[in-house]
Amino acid sequence: MDTQTLSFGMNTIWVILTASMIFFMEGGFALLEAGFVRSKNNVSILMKVFVDMIFGVLAFYTIGFGVMFGMDKFGLFGSSGFALTGNFDHLGLAIPADAFWLFQTAFAIAAISIVSGAVAERMNFKAYILFTLLMTAVIYPVSGHWIWGIDGWLAKLGMKDFAGSAAIHAMAGFAAFAAAKKVGARIGKYNEDGSANLISPSNLPLAAIGTFILWFGWFGFNAGSTLNATASNIGTIAAATLLASAAGGASAMLYTLFKTGKADISFTINGVLAGLVAITAGAAFVGLGSALLIGAAAGVLMIWATNKIDGLKVDDPVGAVAVHGVNGAFGTIAVGLFAIDGGLITTGNWNLLAVQILGTVAVSLWGYLTTAGSLALIDKWIPVRVSVEEELAGLDISYHGTGAYHDMQADVPKFPVEPQLQPGQTVIGLESK
Amino acid sequence: MDTQTLSFGMNTIWVILTASMIFFMEGGFALLEAGFVRSKNNVSILMKVFVDMIFGVLAFYTIGFGVMFGMDKFGLFGSSGFALTGNFDHLGLAIPADAFWLFQTAFAIAAISIVSGAVAERMNFKAYILFTLLMTAVIYPVSGHWIWGIDGWLAKLGMKDFAGSAAIHAMAGFAAFAAAKKVGARIGKYNEDGSANLISPSNLPLAAIGTFILWFGWFGFNAGSTLNATASNIGTIAAATLLASAAGGASAMLYTLFKTGKADISFTINGVLAGLVAITAGAAFVGLGSALLIGAAAGVLMIWATNKIDGLKVDDPVGAVAVHGVNGAFGTIAVGLFAIDGGLITTGNWNLLAVQILGTVAVSLWGYLTTAGSLALIDKWIPVRVSVEEELAGLDISYHGTGAYHDMQADVPKFPVEPQLQPGQTVIGLESK
Amino acid sequence: MDTQTLSFGMNTIWVILTASMIFFMEGGFALLEAGFVRSKNNVSILMKVFVDMIFGVLAFYTIGFGVMFGMDKFGLFGSSGFALTGNFDHLGLAIPADAFWLFQTAFAIAAISIVSGAVAERMNFKAYILFTLLMTAVIYPVSGHWIWGIDGWLAKLGMKDFAGSAAIHAMAGFAAFAAAKKVGARIGKYNEDGSANLISPSNLPLAAIGTFILWFGWFGFNAGSTLNATASNIGTIAAATLLASAAGGASAMLYTLFKTGKADISFTINGVLAGLVAITAGAAFVGLGSALLIGAAAGVLMIWATNKIDGLKVDDPVGAVAVHGVNGAFGTIAVGLFAIDGGLITTGNWNLLAVQILGTVAVSLWGYLTTAGSLALIDKWIPVRVSVEEELAGLDISYHGTGAYHDMQADVPKFPVEPQLQPGQTVIGLESK
Repeated sequence: MDTQTLSFGMNTIWVILTASMIFFMEGGFALLEAGFVRSKNNVSILMKVFVDMIFGVLAFYTIGFGVMFGMDKFGLFGSSGFALTGNFDHLGLAIPADAFWLFQTAFAIAAISIVSGAVAERMNFKAYILFTLLMTAVIYPVSGHWIWGIDGWLAKLGMKDFAGSAAIHAMAGFAAFAAAKKVGARIGKYNEDGSANLISPSNLPLAAIGTFILWFGWFGFNAGSTLNATASNIGTIAAATLLASAAGGASAMLYTLFKTGKADISFTINGVLAGLVAITAGAAFVGLGSALLIGAAAGVLMIWATNKIDGLKVDDPVGAVAVHGVNGAFGTIAVGLFAIDGGLITTGNWNLLAVQILGTVAVSLWGYLTTAGSLALIDKWIPVRVSVEEELAGLDISYHGTGAYHDMQADVPKFPVEPQLQPGQTVIGLESK
Repeated sequence: MDTQTLSFGMNTIWVILTASMIFFMEGGFALLEAGFVRSKNNVSILMKVFVDMIFGVLAFYTIGFGVMFGMDKFGLFGSSGFALTGNFDHLGLAIPADAFWLFQTAFAIAAISIVSGAVAERMNFKAYILFTLLMTAVIYPVSGHWIWGIDGWLAKLGMKDFAGSAAIHAMAGFAAFAAAKKVGARIGKYNEDGSANLISPSNLPLAAIGTFILWFGWFGFNAGSTLNATASNIGTIAAATLLASAAGGASAMLYTLFKTGKADISFTINGVLAGLVAITAGAAFVGLGSALLIGAAAGVLMIWATNKIDGLKVDDPVGAVAVHGVNGAFGTIAVGLFAIDGGLITTGNWNLLAVQILGTVAVSLWGYLTTAGSLALIDKWIPVRVSVEEELAGLDISYHGTGAYHDMQADVPKFPVEPQLQPGQTVIGLESK
Repeated sequence: MDTQTLSFGMNTIWVILTASMIFFMEGGFALLEAGFVRSKNNVSILMKVFVDMIFGVLAFYTIGFGVMFGMDKFGLFGSSGFALTGNFDHLGLAIPADAFWLFQTAFAIAAISIVSGAVAERMNFKAYILFTLLMTAVIYPVSGHWIWGIDGWLAKLGMKDFAGSAAIHAMAGFAAFAAAKKVGARIGKYNEDGSANLISPSNLPLAAIGTFILWFGWFGFNAGSTLNATASNIGTIAAATLLASAAGGASAMLYTLFKTGKADISFTINGVLAGLVAITAGAAFVGLGSALLIGAAAGVLMIWATNKIDGLKVDDPVGAVAVHGVNGAFGTIAVGLFAIDGGLITTGNWNLLAVQILGTVAVSLWGYLTTAGSLALIDKWIPVRVSVEEELAGLDISYHGTGAYHDMQADVPKFPVEPQLQPGQTVIGLESK
């Protein structure tokens, strides 16, 4: 066996394994979001994540991948490779095209999943399916092409976004902002005097599982983005990812501990995630010390942004905008400050920073505007906001015909005799068996 | 270091990592099943999955592996390699024999886990242990040998079952059918007038976690089945797996959405799983377009089969027969239709289809008959069905002495003072501390 | 591409992937512990595991790694490599230093997580943060250096501890013993007449998920410890790990089944974990038959130790001492009995056994004494035990300002209209929308 074959095979299994880890992050999103929202909307949010994965895969296969990685048109979008057909030589891959597609699909689905949390508890289900199709077929692939497509205009300017702080997190985070604004706040979230009510998380152990799954998957997300198993910086990328997440968790946890006397678990979780989001652009470009700084700043920035967004009366039940939008932007710009090769602080050069800011603004605006437009369009056909009655009853029962927890009643620990027979009803087994 | 050593090492880590993913699927089975059954039987179903893994490993090590992969006797079973001793040259492995054993053990355990769901909520625990030993030591290994053993009779006929739609899913799915029939319906499931009652899932977030774990593991299940890290089709296999699962989820979700107006989460979950089961035979043999078709058909077929089986008054609490049995059979036969090399539709050749049908019928019948026979035998010693009192009280308390959720009472959010002291009881700490 | 580069790359991805699996085990610890303790302390235990990972990473990066793997001083500790700076040639690595750091960090965090369970439900949160810093910066790295550091005194004596039955599990298990003793028993655990009360697990499905995550991660823990993807014994290591865990689960489950008539899930879980802990030292050194024996013994030993420790009135809510401490010690000593190369039973040689016993005693005592000392020291500044009021209210509300399950009240299945308005309060959306 020649070394060429070995290398190709090694890259392939590296990409397949890390892609699997990223797909598993959907389970993380599902549980994190289910844990953060009310029980009566748990099935609804789980179903939205199933939509992300199910329709996201189909749309990105059919259209999105071609728009993102097809032959370039005007630096703006790709125009070949739909349904994985045609020629992919222009990509210069060292892995099979379908393995590359698999990995990129996992990224596309992550993008739409970021939005799912921000519209939790009040978005119409069919409208969400339509938006998922638009996001994964067009919105994400277009701006993704700018950064990662061959001859995308931001790529040509030299923008550095290793695993997608901008391409995925900032874009989708600001899409989430537009979506949360459009669907409006949950009933009861804000008082007429301008103050906000706390709507408590329903199940923090679920949210914690979700977080650990996301954390696990993020090693695949960042280190897998080399797409190359012999890249010499895989260890550094993984280490930077870990350090930034720890620093983000630490700064958020300590901030709440010293400010309120009580260490807050929701902010700790989002601090870890903020650190991960922020280092995603730079994991391959900055030193480990910079990774620590970026992560620590991300944790506190997330808290600040969360309060700011709440002040704007944009109701984001899981903090998606603060975590992904704001920290995706911050992390991308931080590359312009800390990149070993070209960062302002590290090298005194302003060029990269300018490009990073330009790119961040461009994709964030793109995410915001196209989402606002898409939802306005969809709204004409299917109202994107559920009715008051549906919302009060809970989306689980309104849209999916079931509650998330059916027999976890107060008397379960007493192990009641069941079922309760209706008068005159006879069921097989109860008397005769 | 020579390329031979590198290749051998790379195959080995590929197999170990994917085998780990498949073992993790046991956690997926456990949670999916726990989520779908009633809370009073949650510990019971978790314990059954622990039995699958614990006793399955021991039985497949001691006996099953030899029966499945030992030197062939009459094309019917293997006869060497028990307890991983002896010579494995006939297998022509490019990985260590114990790594191969590890991977195959993960498959054997998956097979028995398929049955565990179908008998949930009413099968005696000791009887289940005995059945697990028979399934992993004999039943699965024999029919597995036919397909995957060296010189198995179906292998020699040219049957194509890449990762086990027939060898694992159809066989175990029809075993599950026999088992569900033998233990009988849960008390209260069917009315004397022939109608069925809905017994609601207890915890859908648990079921969703289980699904995402299974989905993650399935990439290992299918792509890992190359047992070879330089196989050129690893990317295609993984992509086919993903596309079929998305198509299965989409068809099942949309079917319920348009038929009832409400997108059903249980059917969505089982649609994804049906797509995965159905593509498992063909992931390496069919094109991606065919994978989409197979998956989409599987989602709807699963709903049809679920209703059909309910109509037969065979009570399958998790839908194991419809997902694994029916779609395992369908997926195996679909290879005969869509295989790039030899499929009827793709090449006009009937040969492969005939072999696939023959093989599917053979292993399905084998699973059904041996399970029916085994349970009849066990029943003479230990009644396979629990008593009415045990069932009404719940198997958790009857068989395991504990409920699944002990202090999740209604008043938990009020953070009560505890413990409640008995009159005259004094506990350390409560007064003196 | 040359084979050197390929080999280096392959080792690197092997280490990164297995390290990711070990980090994911933190999710396993979190859920296992949350499932075993009362609901009112669920957030508290989740936060302690977040502390393990967050502060453990930072402390091990800054100090611990240098103490463990830096240039040796007197065979007792390392003295270079702090913050991953300086020269690592003395380690003779075939992977990048930061990949090695990543893997070792995952181990350090596992060590502190073992302690978190033993002090659950009554340890002060800030005190726990301080202890975490000491454990991951100093306590674990020092004794770890003895065994795994270059020129550590136990390493030079020839101690064999492949993946850390002694270095991690026995050390941290006896640290957990000291910590559980120091913080004292939970209120209500022991009666004045000497008898113990059962404090039931809150959520066994959570504990089961945790177990399956730990099981999955353990394949990375043990097989990844080769740090070398072409090591010829990777298959054997993984197979030994699986067999020991199955044997441990089987012996514990069958013991409870035949002794009490009911198979106990908590002991089954801890039996699996005990088997995993016990084989961790020997997975690369003993035969598969010995692995089965070691695992089976571990399962029963764990039950014996659990009762023994309860008899000492040391309250260990999750059984960390019996699982990790006692079986870590047992597994390390078992290498002296069963090692293919040098074991007493296998070769008749006493040397290795003597070294294993010496090493086990040394690191266990080290863990016990330094933890007792550290907590006594911390106690002067911050009381390590929470107040009676805090404990009765639950640590979630006392220390983190929230309960774990906020709206999972008895009436959730009735889908109530919410929110309940205060008299005179008007919220946006409820009337006007």
